[in-house]
Amino acid sequence: MPRRQPEPATPAVAVHLEVVDRADTMARIAERVAAAGGRVRTVSTVSRVASAGVEPDDRPVAELELEVEQADEHALVASLEDLDAVVAIRLTRPMDKVFGKRVIVVGGGAQVAQVALGAVSEADRHNLRGERISVDTIPYLAGERIASAVRAVADLPRARLLVLAGSIMGGEISRAAEELRAAGIPIIALNMVGSITDHVDLVVSDPVQAGTMAVMAVADTATFDLARQRGRKY
Amino acid sequence: MPRRQPEPATPAVAVHLEVVDRADTMARIAERVAAAGGRVRTVSTVSRVASAGVEPDDRPVAELELEVEQADEHALVASLEDLDAVVAIRLTRPMDKVFGKRVIVVGGGAQVAQVALGAVSEADRHNLRGERISVDTIPYLAGERIASAVRAVADLPRARLLVLAGSIMGGEISRAAEELRAAGIPIIALNMVGSITDHVDLVVSDPVQAGTMAVMAVADTATFDLARQRGRKY
Repeated sequence: MPRRQPEPATPAVAVHLEVVDRADTMARIAERVAAAGGRVRTVSTVSRVASAGVEPDDRPVAELELEVEQADEHALVASLEDLDAVVAIRLTRPMDKVFGKRVIVVGGGAQVAQVALGAVSEADRHNLRGERISVDTIPYLAGERIASAVRAVADLPRARLLVLAGSIMGGEISRAAEELRAAGIPIIALNMVGSITDHVDLVVSDPVQAGTMAVMAVADTATFDLARQRGRKY
Repeated sequence: MPRRQPEPATPAVAVHLEVVDRADTMARIAERVAAAGGRVRTVSTVSRVASAGVEPDDRPVAELELEVEQADEHALVASLEDLDAVVAIRLTRPMDKVFGKRVIVVGGGAQVAQVALGAVSEADRHNLRGERISVDTIPYLAGERIASAVRAVADLPRARLLVLAGSIMGGEISRAAEELRAAGIPIIALNMVGSITDHVDLVVSDPVQAGTMAVMAVADTATFDLARQRGRKY
């Protein structure tokens, strides 16, 4: 699989929509965006209200966050505001401009918490200098669920790096790790029991340092190059 | 604004798609989903590949994660697999089934790290019992950027609760906090300087305990009811 292109060709613009939740609503929205020259990149349904009272005939209403590339804000609003299904529209900020790049930490609670400590402290330093890096975690102990989470990172918007924080990982998790790296997302693992340490980009023994290095690896404001550390253990 | 409906009417199903990235691709996909009786709920563009070699004539290819409600997996795949723009399709797991409910922690690095420590440890305990709770953080110091982040939480998929972790917050952040609560997302704040403590659901002095309570408040496996604690300080 080719390496993912981290930056979009044009900055995304975003709108928050209240829409009548009909079967064809999304197709009509996507058509209008296309007619304005844009490409729909992200849709998040943030709420569905069965009977909101917004519509006099109690049609179901949904709220969407829509991100579009290759169109400017005015063209996007103009293309959607007179659409029959659109109840309300307002400009908002694309998630990339707020929460930015994501470092994902998956594993056992004790280690995840320590990796997060290092990563959050380091992200704070870079975010002060204009970066936008967030640290997202999920504690899971069972191996099968960790393997699912590793695979799912490939489909998480804005995910840039995964840290595997545990005491023993291998088997299906190692296979999932190779799939994720092939999709272009590097992995740092704690030094631990199991085959996982042979299937990641970097192995770090101290969890706080692992979190710190993870953020340094994705920060444009750092001089740390993960590619030059590949295969090393610290 | 009516309170958001936390659970969808039907469980979402998800596919990972490689598509030819044309202007009308999303509209054609949404039409097919609608014809199969489904509603598009989430679209994430996880990569765009300018010239992937997948297509003989080097048409640009994008990879999407698509989540749909009100259609089953087979109907969803059947509706999309013969679409001209679809290069590849495979079933995947909806994000709700992997990363689950999200507790968001926003604020200064030192406090965010301590809140995350409590929240990750508590999430670990609940996830062992079948819950799916993740803890997502972003350290920001400047007030204006925190206010933006607070507002953006309303548009984050699966966000259930916000923890404001800092030493001084008020003004625009307090206004953003009231907007977020009106959108149905409760807020826990650390005890701190500024007006923010008058504009949240619960104030907690110890950051580790604030993180713990935040996870308890969203866990179905806990007996903690934030509504009964509203307005209190610990």
